[in-house]
Amino acid sequence: MLINGTPAQVIEAADRGLQYGDGLFETLAVVDGRPCLWKGHLNRLRSGCKRMGIDCPDESLLLEESLAEIDSAQRGILKIIVTRGIGQRGYRPPMPSNPSRILNFMPWPTHSENRADRGVEVQLCSVRLGRNPVLAGMKTLNRLEQVLARAEWSDDRIAEGLMFDTEGYLIEGTASNVFLYREGHLFTPDLSNCGIAGIMRGLVIEQAEKRGIPLSVQDLRLADLKSADGLFLTSSLIGICPVRRVGELSYGLDYMEDTFIGDVIKQGFKI
Amino acid sequence: MLINGTPAQVIEAADRGLQYGDGLFETLAVVDGRPCLWKGHLNRLRSGCKRMGIDCPDESLLLEESLAEIDSAQRGILKIIVTRGIGQRGYRPPMPSNPSRILNFMPWPTHSENRADRGVEVQLCSVRLGRNPVLAGMKTLNRLEQVLARAEWSDDRIAEGLMFDTEGYLIEGTASNVFLYREGHLFTPDLSNCGIAGIMRGLVIEQAEKRGIPLSVQDLRLADLKSADGLFLTSSLIGICPVRRVGELSYGLDYMEDTFIGDVIKQGFKI
Repeated sequence: MLINGTPAQVIEAADRGLQYGDGLFETLAVVDGRPCLWKGHLNRLRSGCKRMGIDCPDESLLLEESLAEIDSAQRGILKIIVTRGIGQRGYRPPMPSNPSRILNFMPWPTHSENRADRGVEVQLCSVRLGRNPVLAGMKTLNRLEQVLARAEWSDDRIAEGLMFDTEGYLIEGTASNVFLYREGHLFTPDLSNCGIAGIMRGLVIEQAEKRGIPLSVQDLRLADLKSADGLFLTSSLIGICPVRRVGELSYGLDYMEDTFIGDVIKQGFKI
Repeated sequence: MLINGTPAQVIEAADRGLQYGDGLFETLAVVDGRPCLWKGHLNRLRSGCKRMGIDCPDESLLLEESLAEIDSAQRGILKIIVTRGIGQRGYRPPMPSNPSRILNFMPWPTHSENRADRGVEVQLCSVRLGRNPVLAGMKTLNRLEQVLARAEWSDDRIAEGLMFDTEGYLIEGTASNVFLYREGHLFTPDLSNCGIAGIMRGLVIEQAEKRGIPLSVQDLRLADLKSADGLFLTSSLIGICPVRRVGELSYGLDYMEDTFIGDVIKQGFKI
C-alpha cells in the first residue's frame, strides 16, 4: 500500500475518511500491468471531489504512484481512496482540505473467471438504497447500504444482489450497474437519486449510441425486470457480465447476438 | 488515543471503518472525570452493532479503557468508535467480525459555554437527509450528509443547522436533535426513516413523560417550525440548548418556565 506517497499499512485514526466516511474511492482493473479505464476513473474521482469540496490530488501524481504500487504485477485490482484528511473535531470540513490518498494493489480474485460465457445467477436484495441527489452517482466511502445488502447471502453460486431504492425503483447491483434488454432496446436505471455512476456503465451507454442501439436511462421497476428478455451487469472488474437467473426469473443470452454486448464480452471488457 | 487497548494514533488502512464507513460511534461528555450517560450510549452502541451484525466489544472492557483514556482529565469529550475491523476485499462482511475499537479523549471546546442562557441562532440547511429505515436511528460512520450540511456555513454566530429529509420532513440538527414547543405541548421528529436517535433526546422524552408534559414523536414540517412558540436542541455535548432564532424566525425562551426544560438547563445537562 502507498499512503500519501509512502509505503505503509496504516493511517491516522483522526482521518475523516474513518471518522465520517468523508472521502471517495475508485476500483480499477489492472491488465498487462496497466490500470484500465484510467481517464474515466480519474474524471469521476475529480468530479466527486469537486462536489464534496475535497482538493483532488493531481492526476499525474496519482498515476505515478499507481504504477509504483502496481510495480511489476500484470493482473490485479487497484483501489484508490482519497479522503478529506485530518481536521478539527466535528463535521465541519477543514478549509482548505488536506486530503489523504491511499493506493492499494491486490491480486486478481481467482473465482471470477469464465462467468461471462454462461451467465451468472443473482438475487434481489431486501436492503434498499436511500435517495439523496446530493450523494447520487458518487463512489463515496459511505457504503453501509451495500455492506448490509451484501450480507444478505453467503451462497457463492449467487454472483450479485440487485438493489432497489426506498421508492421501489431498480438501481444497481451491490457492486455493479445493471442493464436490461427488451426487443432491441437497452435500458439502465436513472441514477439521479441514488446509485453509483459506474465507469463501465458509462462506456456501455457511449458504445450503444455509437453503434446505433437504442438505449434509455430511465426509471425502472421490478415489472421491467420481469418483462426483460435479457439482463447484464457491468463493473470495472467484471466488465460486462450476462445474467441468466434472478431468483425465479430466467433470462436467455441470445440478445447478445443482436447487440454489441456479445462482441464486447468475447473481446474482454476493454470496450 | 487507545486503539484495541493500545496507545496509538493509527489504524490499518484495510479497516472497514475506513473502506466503507462500516462501523458506529458514540460521543460522550466527560464531567468530573466520568463519561456521562454511559448506559444510554452503550445501549445504543450495542443495539447498532446488533443491527449491523458487528460483535460489540464488552461493556466492561469499553468502560475500563474509557477511564484509562480519560486518565486524570476532568472535563472533555470521549469518542468511542467501533468498526467491523479488517476483512477480505469487497462489501461482504467477514463472519465473524473482528471489530476494532478506538477511544479518543479530547479537551472540552472553549466556545460552547454559556449558550444555553440566551439561546442560540441556527439556520436551515439545503442538504437533505436520505430516508432509509435500515440505517435510521443509528450513529454510523456514514456521515457525509452531515459533513456536507455543516459545510453550508462558516459564520461562528450560527450554532447549528437544521436538516430536513428528502420528503421535506424536519429531522434534526447536523449534530443535535430538535424539539418544538407549542401551547404546553412538546414535539420532536419521528426518526423511523432517518436521523440519529440521540441519547439526550431519549432522556427528554422520558422526563416529559415522568413529569406529565405532553410530548409527541411525529412527522414535523417547516410549517410546524413556523408555528412553534419555542425550539430547543439536544445532544450529549450541548445538553439542552434553547434556540432564539432560525433564519428569519424568532423564538421566545418563556416556555422554559412552563416546562421542566428551564430547570434542567439551570442544573446542567445531567437530567
